[in-house]
Amino acid sequence: MIIDSHGHYTTAPPGLRIFRTLQISNMGRPVKGKVNISDDEIRSSLEKGQVRLLDERGIDVMLFSPMASAMGHHFGSARISRHWTEVSNELIHRVCTLYPDRFVGVCALPQSPGVSPRECGEELERCVTEFGFVGCNLNPDPSGGYWTDPPLGDEWWYPLYEKLAALGATAMVHASATCNPAFHTTGSHYLNVDSTAFMQLLESRVFKDFPTLRLVISHGGGNVPYQAARYRALCLMNKWEPFEEFITRLYFDTTVYDQEAMELLLKVVGVDNVMFASEMLGGVTTVDPKTSRWFDDNKPCLDAISWLTEADRKKIFEENVVRAYPRLGPILERRLQRTSPRI
Amino acid sequence: MIIDSHGHYTTAPPGLRIFRTLQISNMGRPVKGKVNISDDEIRSSLEKGQVRLLDERGIDVMLFSPMASAMGHHFGSARISRHWTEVSNELIHRVCTLYPDRFVGVCALPQSPGVSPRECGEELERCVTEFGFVGCNLNPDPSGGYWTDPPLGDEWWYPLYEKLAALGATAMVHASATCNPAFHTTGSHYLNVDSTAFMQLLESRVFKDFPTLRLVISHGGGNVPYQAARYRALCLMNKWEPFEEFITRLYFDTTVYDQEAMELLLKVVGVDNVMFASEMLGGVTTVDPKTSRWFDDNKPCLDAISWLTEADRKKIFEENVVRAYPRLGPILERRLQRTSPRI
Repeated sequence: MIIDSHGHYTTAPPGLRIFRTLQISNMGRPVKGKVNISDDEIRSSLEKGQVRLLDERGIDVMLFSPMASAMGHHFGSARISRHWTEVSNELIHRVCTLYPDRFVGVCALPQSPGVSPRECGEELERCVTEFGFVGCNLNPDPSGGYWTDPPLGDEWWYPLYEKLAALGATAMVHASATCNPAFHTTGSHYLNVDSTAFMQLLESRVFKDFPTLRLVISHGGGNVPYQAARYRALCLMNKWEPFEEFITRLYFDTTVYDQEAMELLLKVVGVDNVMFASEMLGGVTTVDPKTSRWFDDNKPCLDAISWLTEADRKKIFEENVVRAYPRLGPILERRLQRTSPRI
Repeated sequence: MIIDSHGHYTTAPPGLRIFRTLQISNMGRPVKGKVNISDDEIRSSLEKGQVRLLDERGIDVMLFSPMASAMGHHFGSARISRHWTEVSNELIHRVCTLYPDRFVGVCALPQSPGVSPRECGEELERCVTEFGFVGCNLNPDPSGGYWTDPPLGDEWWYPLYEKLAALGATAMVHASATCNPAFHTTGSHYLNVDSTAFMQLLESRVFKDFPTLRLVISHGGGNVPYQAARYRALCLMNKWEPFEEFITRLYFDTTVYDQEAMELLLKVVGVDNVMFASEMLGGVTTVDPKTSRWFDDNKPCLDAISWLTEADRKKIFEENVVRAYPRLGPILERRLQRTSPRI
């Protein structure tokens, strides 16, 4: 089985943006309201996009979450963020209900700068227990590029880690859009957030306090594999847990779009903690003239790495994802029972 | 000749820190005051540190600037920043005067958040024309991790670029310490600044407006070589100058401490725009158990790359540095005349 561990509903029908526009118009008196999108519109948005590409690229299942950049946790009050997050997650639930064999839900969290992550617990629980989602996206900087909240090692975040641990749910570190002109959302902010989150965790005691916590660093870990020697040195100088041990507490995805970068990722992180992901349709929606493939058609990059064994590939495409997301296994088993030919 | 293009005076005698402490005590009524450090103290601080290591590692010359993290542009008023920068640069000038064959000066700039980079012109000119420095360090985020100033592509920075161009001086993008608890100074802030500066320039028209401007991205370019496919895709999607062309407008140094990372850097950037540098003594002052060498003893990483030709090595160790810093050539010629045995 081939699982793509990182996809967003970037092709959501216009009704979602209309809802968001009304949030701006009514930001003084926020009400949750309703998203007007038909099932046919959902089907159409996916059949032309993600479902078609999953078929073409031989990918069986995708972990699917709301469009990350659109979450904009910096916009409006905590109440606005909550309404927007709820309707975005409800739309993902509809996708997963319409395509139970293709998409498994991952929720956004109703984060807001300066608001305790404890406030995200209720929505996380709803998505996991009522909708059957397997985890959430976690934005370490809800301010959108001004970095006003405490680092991930601070106890500020602990109520959320407790909830994740209690639910057996997984969090993927993933920024939303930046509102700081210093940054480009997909070109610098996303990658800075990945690398910064890694460093925040490296110098923290989060995994001592939550040994079963499962966290994913997206976009190939930002700079981590390339700058590994710097991190190794910092661990030694500060007498932290050795880098080689620490790195196996986290999961990384393959959303770098180049074979050599993937090889470095796999060498530094190891084949047990890397999960296949393409993040399509995401930040790199064009054809690479070097390969004549879409940049996010990145499974061939992995396929071309000659030193990976069949067992390694099974880990990267399937087993590591199931290990990173413990709630995924039973979902895939039920899927298998539905889709397998009866004997 | 072997040139190390990136070193800071991290071993400065205690007199410099005493000066800085007095700045805190008197921050309401700042006066420039005086740094009390003898020539013998300077010699001692270097003979035990950088000079000994340059000798041991076979490095002839180092570009030398004030300790980057110590500049703390976020601390105090613009006047405090100016005084601190001036005494720090004057100390580098004394180093270069005591060791004219080993160190070539690079200055810090008296930056301050919200203050026009135009205000740095005078000190840059003093260091270049009076002290014989070849360039400066440029901090894209004087706020120290809150990113409150405009991006490097904004005309906000143009007066400084004009001054650099007029002087034939070079700027190395390099952060100072962060005062934001979200970041670790050498573990995340430095690298975020490198990558962010690259992206700011990539989406700007800086090199159209200043075709002769020479900028260096330090620390191996942050994440740039590893995430090159993402940047390539962004260039294509936005119809910017192709990544492969843009990257040759910048210079990168080798302050990554691992052979594979250096190979990726050289493959992505090309052998014409990478300069040898160790940044010793800097962020990674310990022994790498993998190699039994100090992490910053990184010349052997380059030496071990088998596909580099002798001509490539000459570029990386010498010629690219002279091209990146046009004011360096004449200094090295005078040095050669002094140090060559007379025939």
